[in-house]
Amino acid sequence: MITRLEAFAVPGLPIVGAGDDLAALVTGALAASGDAPRRGDVLMVTSKIVARAEGRFAELSRVTPSAAALELAREVEGDPRLVELVLSESTGVSRKRRGALVVRHRLGFVTANAGIDLSNSAPPDAAPGSGPWALLLPRDPDASAERLRRAWRPDGALAVIVTDSFGRPFRVGTVGAAIGVAGLRPVVDHRGELDLFGRTLEHTIAARADQLAALSDLVAGQSSDRQPVVVVRGVEFAPVDDASARELCRPLDGDLYA
Amino acid sequence: MITRLEAFAVPGLPIVGAGDDLAALVTGALAASGDAPRRGDVLMVTSKIVARAEGRFAELSRVTPSAAALELAREVEGDPRLVELVLSESTGVSRKRRGALVVRHRLGFVTANAGIDLSNSAPPDAAPGSGPWALLLPRDPDASAERLRRAWRPDGALAVIVTDSFGRPFRVGTVGAAIGVAGLRPVVDHRGELDLFGRTLEHTIAARADQLAALSDLVAGQSSDRQPVVVVRGVEFAPVDDASARELCRPLDGDLYA
Repeated sequence: MITRLEAFAVPGLPIVGAGDDLAALVTGALAASGDAPRRGDVLMVTSKIVARAEGRFAELSRVTPSAAALELAREVEGDPRLVELVLSESTGVSRKRRGALVVRHRLGFVTANAGIDLSNSAPPDAAPGSGPWALLLPRDPDASAERLRRAWRPDGALAVIVTDSFGRPFRVGTVGAAIGVAGLRPVVDHRGELDLFGRTLEHTIAARADQLAALSDLVAGQSSDRQPVVVVRGVEFAPVDDASARELCRPLDGDLYA
Repeated sequence: MITRLEAFAVPGLPIVGAGDDLAALVTGALAASGDAPRRGDVLMVTSKIVARAEGRFAELSRVTPSAAALELAREVEGDPRLVELVLSESTGVSRKRRGALVVRHRLGFVTANAGIDLSNSAPPDAAPGSGPWALLLPRDPDASAERLRRAWRPDGALAVIVTDSFGRPFRVGTVGAAIGVAGLRPVVDHRGELDLFGRTLEHTIAARADQLAALSDLVAGQSSDRQPVVVVRGVEFAPVDDASARELCRPLDGDLYA
């Protein structure tokens, strides 16, 4: 049971580019403030900073849209080069209409524009006049999270979550969602526990990694390059080595809104 | 910009029944630990404890299902008395199938079973052998939040959010959602701010009250009668007097999944 937790942004991180050692940058920034990744910490890392370190930049002027992308772009009135990138990252379209393209990402979740970002998306060494630039999501966020976890604690005694901001059906505004997880079970199943009156609890699968992602989104702020790494202390969890953000993705055939 | 926040559960709250003074109970519990609601705090209160204080208990054996409820209950294979309560709290059905009934609640949001809870739902003074009991959501959670806000700080210098746990399309597990808000704008609109490269930010409406609700759900735990009130410190917000959780509900005609 959690009784108290704290969350803080890692201060003073630079703008990250392809090939930068994110783990070392965070460790250095924490050390400068007299801190370090600790046993039991959950380190929340935005997809954007992970993607930048992985060099997931795409210059739109170098993208050649397929026929399918051209047709879909006409339908949603979007940039065909962006639509091409979206399709290349997706396994299917969930909803489309003018100005909106929601897809099932190759990583399993459903999100607008396959999570491709057009803000703060240029590499630090972009030539003047180049672009516009897009930034794709990390290649394998679970693996990225696991690499960071081991870099920070070779004994694996902390957890790492890669987050993105998702829009949602029915509700206004974005919240954080976990798209990569290492070191902690992303879903907590309380089924079988008894409630205060001895009845079996219902509705008792909590999306813990998404709860944490929402918290870190709140702290990271919106222009998330500014505070892209958030440390959460006080979460009690049993370390695991087989976590995946895919545990948070409901199968298509079990979804009322597929 | 938030750089650090902390969240903790108010310790030692009793099981609440109809007519209990929730504001006084929380103030007393905080005082016992040497604390008090402070300027700038956000107090997160589960719908369940608010509903219990408001006496929103319903004994299923006293509910008479309508013809519509009987038919719908056959279709989803649910308890007709529960379905009757769900319909009485709803303006429409969003999705239905065996074992699942998702509705648009009269308060504007979309949720399973109209948020009616069958766990920990008996009043403290329930007669032996009575029940089973159901607990409806609070009558007007925005108003409940505002009453609590003024009880804790007559100057209004804190915010109160009433939370519930929602399932979600596409994703496994529940997260907290704000169903009542007082004192802070539930949605933060960053549109018009510039990103690090001078481009206008996209996707920049953050569902702040839902981010906070996810955080408090994480701290409150699942059997939420146990830690039903969570204090969040470190959120920077401008106090407002006209907040409503309805700001988080997307209009039906703007929703791709309606």
